[in-house]
Amino acid sequence: MNIIKEIKKNINNKEIQVGVIGLGYVGLPLVNNIIKKRYKVIGFDIDKNKIRMLNKGKSYINHISNRTISYLLKNGFIATDNWAKINYVDVIIICVPTPLTSQKTPDLSYLKTTLDSIIPYFKNNQLLILESTSYPGTTKEVLLPIIENIGFVIGRNFFISYSPEREDPGNKDFTTDLIPKLISGVTSNCLEIVKTFYGNIFSKTVLVSSTETAEMAKLLENIYRAVNIGLINEMKIVSTKLGIDIYEVIEAAATKPFGFTPFFPGPGIGGHCIPIDPFYLAWKAKQIGVKTSFIKAAGEINAKMPKWVVDLTKENLFKRNINIINSKILIIGVAYKKNVDDMRESPSLKIINLLIQEGAKVDYHDPLISQIHRTRKYNYNLKSKPLRDIGDFDCVLILTDHDSIDYTNIVKKSNLIIDTRGRLKNNPNVIQG
Amino acid sequence: MNIIKEIKKNINNKEIQVGVIGLGYVGLPLVNNIIKKRYKVIGFDIDKNKIRMLNKGKSYINHISNRTISYLLKNGFIATDNWAKINYVDVIIICVPTPLTSQKTPDLSYLKTTLDSIIPYFKNNQLLILESTSYPGTTKEVLLPIIENIGFVIGRNFFISYSPEREDPGNKDFTTDLIPKLISGVTSNCLEIVKTFYGNIFSKTVLVSSTETAEMAKLLENIYRAVNIGLINEMKIVSTKLGIDIYEVIEAAATKPFGFTPFFPGPGIGGHCIPIDPFYLAWKAKQIGVKTSFIKAAGEINAKMPKWVVDLTKENLFKRNINIINSKILIIGVAYKKNVDDMRESPSLKIINLLIQEGAKVDYHDPLISQIHRTRKYNYNLKSKPLRDIGDFDCVLILTDHDSIDYTNIVKKSNLIIDTRGRLKNNPNVIQG
Repeated sequence: MNIIKEIKKNINNKEIQVGVIGLGYVGLPLVNNIIKKRYKVIGFDIDKNKIRMLNKGKSYINHISNRTISYLLKNGFIATDNWAKINYVDVIIICVPTPLTSQKTPDLSYLKTTLDSIIPYFKNNQLLILESTSYPGTTKEVLLPIIENIGFVIGRNFFISYSPEREDPGNKDFTTDLIPKLISGVTSNCLEIVKTFYGNIFSKTVLVSSTETAEMAKLLENIYRAVNIGLINEMKIVSTKLGIDIYEVIEAAATKPFGFTPFFPGPGIGGHCIPIDPFYLAWKAKQIGVKTSFIKAAGEINAKMPKWVVDLTKENLFKRNINIINSKILIIGVAYKKNVDDMRESPSLKIINLLIQEGAKVDYHDPLISQIHRTRKYNYNLKSKPLRDIGDFDCVLILTDHDSIDYTNIVKKSNLIIDTRGRLKNNPNVIQG
Repeated sequence: MNIIKEIKKNINNKEIQVGVIGLGYVGLPLVNNIIKKRYKVIGFDIDKNKIRMLNKGKSYINHISNRTISYLLKNGFIATDNWAKINYVDVIIICVPTPLTSQKTPDLSYLKTTLDSIIPYFKNNQLLILESTSYPGTTKEVLLPIIENIGFVIGRNFFISYSPEREDPGNKDFTTDLIPKLISGVTSNCLEIVKTFYGNIFSKTVLVSSTETAEMAKLLENIYRAVNIGLINEMKIVSTKLGIDIYEVIEAAATKPFGFTPFFPGPGIGGHCIPIDPFYLAWKAKQIGVKTSFIKAAGEINAKMPKWVVDLTKENLFKRNINIINSKILIIGVAYKKNVDDMRESPSLKIINLLIQEGAKVDYHDPLISQIHRTRKYNYNLKSKPLRDIGDFDCVLILTDHDSIDYTNIVKKSNLIIDTRGRLKNNPNVIQG
């Protein structure tokens, strides 16, 4: 039998083993999906602590329960840092981080280190799927030559696909398997095989004609978001200066039944996608001599929002004859967005830093983040305070509006509230920031 | 009886006369709506030709039929340039153009000239509604002082409202009366009265708390569009350089069921709103010392698209060993968007100009625009050519993709097609531009 047919038959009969590399916010939900469809999965990660927790049935992600992990283990899942096991799998899915360097250029070191680690264990007829977001050309310029170099013929005895993750942590309407899955292949056989595999996993697959198209599509999604958040943040700055309530403006504009999609301002942007992905395209565009002025503008505006919030806080304390030096400030919410326990790139971290620099005494409350761990940039030693003694603070600063917080209590007891999320937008005693 | 109650009673009993100033793309559909609700309307315009046509039952706007004009006339409508008649009306609605000066600053000359003309005929208890788009503050900074100056007490014996038009010419899903109507008033009595009147005209009114909010909301709607069109035009430039089909990218990204709204690239932007409105806010923001970087970026990118299209045309002719000098180019569509007969700010005008400068011989076909009239900027003498002898042209350049055009015929007979609208996006013989 033709090898392509045989691979497809094995996939459809679930007679394959799958390896997922990177067991974070992308990899772990994906493992869950694949196991639900009755495939055997080995999970790979370099974090020994994560591996230990998973193999004990414990989750380290808020919206994934321990019960889910137990379910995975009962259905053959195992987590490991032993790369040699790559040799046992038929499908390799890479979900490693693709962050930025300090110069805001693509940092593909996780991807490259992963490739170095797994390449010795590649075997004939494996399908390699890259899920990590990256610039157009990554699959063909980075993955392809490395794998061709060790003698495989892509589309004949090894298959490469790019299929971008579209995770939206905390989104209850769209879980991973309900989000249409973009898929592409380096060759038509690659596309054929990934279509067969992901067709078994996701409720809908969307085929595109090249890996570059899939890479660009994922970036466009997040560039659209970053730019529109930047735009509405800039509009907030203009509106505030004009004495106009931006939330009322957005609500009014959103009554137009066509041609307008509301975005909402905030204290800056965070998470593992929106602040990062656009710069992947900006970097690639610069290489070919094309400007990306909207990405630049969004980067600048969104990066300056934390300072704007701190200035507003200072100003409003001053109006109450309080100097920010030694003032007591309670931050509500430090996650990068509501209802998640993820602090990556959270603007709260920058705002805390700026407030401390100004001499303020900062505490925080976040029902989902019990303490702020040391990050590459900041070294805080803070633990979430219970929502008591709110009246002791000069200012309560809402940075992330988790749904589980008791806002009525905050409104009742606070001396001054600055709300950067529009949560208390109809309360005249709250400063919109 | 209290005067407010009396005015409201008269409005509800349809015992009032309405005056609409400016009988263009905004004013004329509005007249139609008001007459449908059985109010008497006098239409004012400074263009004697328009007045003559209307009073003869003839329309000068493609999507408004002669039958509609006859219907208006049968129901008491009359068009005039006699400002004295302002003294007979109870409601004055201003729908005059608010364009830009050559320095891209607000040109309120039509509004100011109109006010000068009508002020001598103002009388007690009139309601004045401004529909023209303008910067936040216009109603209170421009209208209000002029009217207070002549002795009226706003909210007591004269009433001022700002209610932005939201026309989308050619939109068949949303006719004027189905688009929720934003309304605001200088005082609460002003709001009360405009609510009563527009509540009788529109299927839904949306009250906002100040005229500035309504002014800003209208601008935000069009800034959102201008910025997103600019963004996707920039993404088209990047994609084209990378050899990626932007339409396939947009289609792929649009399969994401949340967080993404597709916009489409084009040869530039046109019409009476999108290229103009954002600069009204940019001007106001500059006055208060705030940057509007997205408006700036959108203005720049959208303005440079015509040149980009011409360069692409040149390049593709060159690939076929044809010099653009003396080349024969047929433009398809010169309206600013499809299915309208409106050429205002159309990028086609700029592209024709650039092509002529390059030495090309330009003809055009547009089923809705039989000839190109002289404009402030360009002095062409061109008439729409029938779609014959397409093979005689070196290049067919699709700039506006009216639905009524026979594209199959164009594809069959053209030597080279450059499509700037994605109309023929799945045809491999067509250059996407």
